[in-house]
Amino acid sequence: MTDFSVPVEDMRFALDFAGRIDAISKLNGYQHLDRTTIGDILEEAARFYEEVVAPLNRPGDQQGARLEDGNVYAPDGFKEAYQAYVQAGWPGAQFPEAWGGGGLPYTIGLALNEMFKAANMAFSLCPMLTHSAVEALMRHGSDEQKAHYLEKLVTGEWTGTMLLTEPQSGSDLGTIRTRAVPQEDGSYRIFGTKIFITWGDHDMTDNIVHFVLAKTPDAPAGTRGISMFLVPKYLPNPDGSLGERNDYRIVSIEHKLGIHASPTCVVSLGDSGEGAVGWMVGNEFEGMRNMFTMMNTARIGVGIEGLALTERAYQQALTYARERLQGRRPGSTEQAAIIEHPDIKRMLLTMKANAEAMRALLYHTAFHNDLARHAEDQAAREQAANTVALLTPVVKAWCTDLGVEMTSLAIQVHGGMGFIEETGVAQHYRDARIAPIYEGTNGIQAIDLVTRKLPLEGGQTVSRYINRMTEVMDRMTAHPDLGTFRDRLTTAIQGLVETTEWLSARLQSDDMDAVLAAATPYLRQFGIVTGGWLMAVQAVAAREELTDRYDAGYLEERVKVARFYGEHLLPTTNGLIPTITAGADFLDAIG
Amino acid sequence: MTDFSVPVEDMRFALDFAGRIDAISKLNGYQHLDRTTIGDILEEAARFYEEVVAPLNRPGDQQGARLEDGNVYAPDGFKEAYQAYVQAGWPGAQFPEAWGGGGLPYTIGLALNEMFKAANMAFSLCPMLTHSAVEALMRHGSDEQKAHYLEKLVTGEWTGTMLLTEPQSGSDLGTIRTRAVPQEDGSYRIFGTKIFITWGDHDMTDNIVHFVLAKTPDAPAGTRGISMFLVPKYLPNPDGSLGERNDYRIVSIEHKLGIHASPTCVVSLGDSGEGAVGWMVGNEFEGMRNMFTMMNTARIGVGIEGLALTERAYQQALTYARERLQGRRPGSTEQAAIIEHPDIKRMLLTMKANAEAMRALLYHTAFHNDLARHAEDQAAREQAANTVALLTPVVKAWCTDLGVEMTSLAIQVHGGMGFIEETGVAQHYRDARIAPIYEGTNGIQAIDLVTRKLPLEGGQTVSRYINRMTEVMDRMTAHPDLGTFRDRLTTAIQGLVETTEWLSARLQSDDMDAVLAAATPYLRQFGIVTGGWLMAVQAVAAREELTDRYDAGYLEERVKVARFYGEHLLPTTNGLIPTITAGADFLDAIG
Repeated sequence: MTDFSVPVEDMRFALDFAGRIDAISKLNGYQHLDRTTIGDILEEAARFYEEVVAPLNRPGDQQGARLEDGNVYAPDGFKEAYQAYVQAGWPGAQFPEAWGGGGLPYTIGLALNEMFKAANMAFSLCPMLTHSAVEALMRHGSDEQKAHYLEKLVTGEWTGTMLLTEPQSGSDLGTIRTRAVPQEDGSYRIFGTKIFITWGDHDMTDNIVHFVLAKTPDAPAGTRGISMFLVPKYLPNPDGSLGERNDYRIVSIEHKLGIHASPTCVVSLGDSGEGAVGWMVGNEFEGMRNMFTMMNTARIGVGIEGLALTERAYQQALTYARERLQGRRPGSTEQAAIIEHPDIKRMLLTMKANAEAMRALLYHTAFHNDLARHAEDQAAREQAANTVALLTPVVKAWCTDLGVEMTSLAIQVHGGMGFIEETGVAQHYRDARIAPIYEGTNGIQAIDLVTRKLPLEGGQTVSRYINRMTEVMDRMTAHPDLGTFRDRLTTAIQGLVETTEWLSARLQSDDMDAVLAAATPYLRQFGIVTGGWLMAVQAVAAREELTDRYDAGYLEERVKVARFYGEHLLPTTNGLIPTITAGADFLDAIG
Repeated sequence: MTDFSVPVEDMRFALDFAGRIDAISKLNGYQHLDRTTIGDILEEAARFYEEVVAPLNRPGDQQGARLEDGNVYAPDGFKEAYQAYVQAGWPGAQFPEAWGGGGLPYTIGLALNEMFKAANMAFSLCPMLTHSAVEALMRHGSDEQKAHYLEKLVTGEWTGTMLLTEPQSGSDLGTIRTRAVPQEDGSYRIFGTKIFITWGDHDMTDNIVHFVLAKTPDAPAGTRGISMFLVPKYLPNPDGSLGERNDYRIVSIEHKLGIHASPTCVVSLGDSGEGAVGWMVGNEFEGMRNMFTMMNTARIGVGIEGLALTERAYQQALTYARERLQGRRPGSTEQAAIIEHPDIKRMLLTMKANAEAMRALLYHTAFHNDLARHAEDQAAREQAANTVALLTPVVKAWCTDLGVEMTSLAIQVHGGMGFIEETGVAQHYRDARIAPIYEGTNGIQAIDLVTRKLPLEGGQTVSRYINRMTEVMDRMTAHPDLGTFRDRLTTAIQGLVETTEWLSARLQSDDMDAVLAAATPYLRQFGIVTGGWLMAVQAVAAREELTDRYDAGYLEERVKVARFYGEHLLPTTNGLIPTITAGADFLDAIG
């Protein structure tokens, strides 16, 4: 056991008002679900992650994964915990029962992932990448591939990885050099070196299935020439048993700032000269499209890391602040717990309010993902899919930037103790730092938002989305004790409209320098304002809708936290507008 | 050698326009100094820090300091480098020649400290604390104490430490339990446990002099009962040779997030039962005052760390961004260095502009410190001292918060490579994290600013200071290519006036909750606006004043960087005003 407890009530609350669980259980395929069933699932999962997974977080950081004689070993206890995870049926919770999954909505799967990531981020990356592999195989795999691999991956009996990056090809995959040579039997032989392969090898399962980007002979240059291949660690025999070890080698694992328990591998394919045996997934030259199928759900999964580490670091800081006596409150001579100091309260509330806003945005995005898959009406499905597309870069970048900032605040609350590794909070700060980088850097997310997502449906997706935000305003007037929140939200939404129109005009006139120069501060504004809107929805829901489901004190606390967000965090967007609209004159200031 | 080079030209430039070196060399005692002499000193020092100190930064992080059989050993090479530092005469550069120092102004000493900290922050802490000890001894030591210890500390032959913190007493020293028992010969025997003692022991010098806070028998409770004691590691014999080892023990050293080369010691005094021998420094019960003499210069010294790590991490990110090919510029098919991407340029300029603004604020504060000590006119000295008092918490907190944020950006520029420890940039991010914590947490700096510094001279100090900022406006109108910088600065200064008045009114009505709740965002606003003002001064100086001293291209770059600060960083203060003036209603939202 550790001091981490899954915030089940906060998760239920966010599922109610942002995850719209009532609406999800009216969708095709989910009618058997009700709040009680979901509550039971959350409670059971919480117990598992608190008792089995969370206690391995700090020892895993200290011991790290290790490479011995070409094999990677997870830290002590990980293999047993992984087996328990598989036994309990958690890996495939959000996948179809037909493939051995739990048949739960994506939104509930996301909540379960949040638990895993908060309990042990480094460990959670292995299932996260397996989930991405499942998405790719379900969408693009052949019937034969599905028959051989899908159930094994859904149930977690085997794990999956993505082999994308090469030394010269990070964000820009068009320059990959890995070659796939076609064989007479329809398979390929693959040669090349891949880096930054998360959980690229380990001892927790009997087999590992790699999804590899490579180029066939005479493929066109750039990203249009990329195909995807399935490369298992052990080649399955016709009877399903495991045969020969495939021809690739783990050359080294990285020594990293954080997520020490997660082995980041350099993989050399075809080292023996024969080539690693692989099979093409989907059509030739559609590797990038297939990769984005994997990547987009992984991007949301990485966004959760920002929330999860904020939550875990917040809990630790809150406990410390309540216990640590130091200084006095103004006008008193008795020592007070440091939580009594207004500046400490500001730090704790900043963490708490941001955690609630992130959770709201994540569950709200997940709800649209369930709509996109299960709504009756095709137009509704398409609109929902576009909303998910719009929000994915925001979820990924805004939440992970906050993850770094909020874990840093948690260290600050601890004072000198925060800098001591044994305290444990520094690990969250180290772990959090990878999330703005991988699965597409946050800069790339911002570019994706302004160049690909703003133009969706000719700009309709974003304007429809922002228009929706104003609906909550009328209801806020009934709650004067929200202070200036309503005014702040009005100003903040107007600001978002202003910068969105400014960007749309620049996109139309093809002034790409101005668009790209504004991308990062615009994404941040988008995240903070969307968070503010959802926190307003939360406050109103706490007052008007969910009063029979939660304790009155709990709801009152939600209103106060929402008001803090509205009055203290939301207004920072005012300061981003001049930056966004300042243009690209700075481009010649450095080179 | 490493890839770090001391930014000598930027330092000279900042010394010219913000450090006001021309004005300093008119002060009593510094008339022998001219720009050429100072330039030579800077060049010589730069060579030393680049060649001798900087190369030990990464190995020192990897090896760390170690405790063996009660003795602490610095990482390999540190002892030799320290001896070379002493031989070259750098330790006492800014102290009086009468005590073996170099007789240079404080401002030049600060510039030299910047070099040390950028070259090797963990190493630099040992001299920094020695400098603080020198300040305390010069101001409060007896003639006999000075005769025995001062020259040894000034020349760096011995080093100094501060023993303040105890397990139950961190920020709140009123609760310390260390006892000092008076002896018949006028000395004291000291018993107690002190923690977080930076460079509390090491093998680089023959002796170490500890400045210890403790309570005499029957001392009043709280901070008013604290006295300061000088406790050497080895007791000097009357002939100056080293005698007996004093009665204290290094119990352990901490395992920390960063600054691994700097041993952070737990010190147990009087373990053998006899008590550590010490002598009172200054008067009984004036330990806190004496401690602040040490602490205040240390606070500026810690502020430099934010600048120094930003500079070093920036250089590394810039080099990487120029070399790493990835992606294409819009409209091109050729791979480009990542510095060509507008979002990367934004990150690099954010680091560069913040580094220049921090350096300007630090040198500007140091200039006032020289004025406070050497100005002819007493009123001028007092005003300058108040300005230093006002700016010290801003320098400490604003610069160190930026140090964390900017080293994080430097990681981001590196993408996946930034997360790999071998790249080296992650070390700066880990090292930077201590600076907002030690020498008074940044929250305490903010409280100091709003509760002790705003009321200085009945509010005259701060209003005089802010009024001065408007002087640059008229001169900016002559330079239309500063874009909207002048407008942004006008707005930003108005905002600072508004929040300062708001806080003054709350201070007057003793609404301390509101004052304390606003402290941290107000300090940030104060730092960013002051930085903006100094960057405007920099732009004007580059255009009007220093044209015969620098290359035209260099000056043009300063103007562009200043404009970036004014247009992209300064406006974020708009977003802080609502937060500052939102009041303390959030205090009941968490507890």
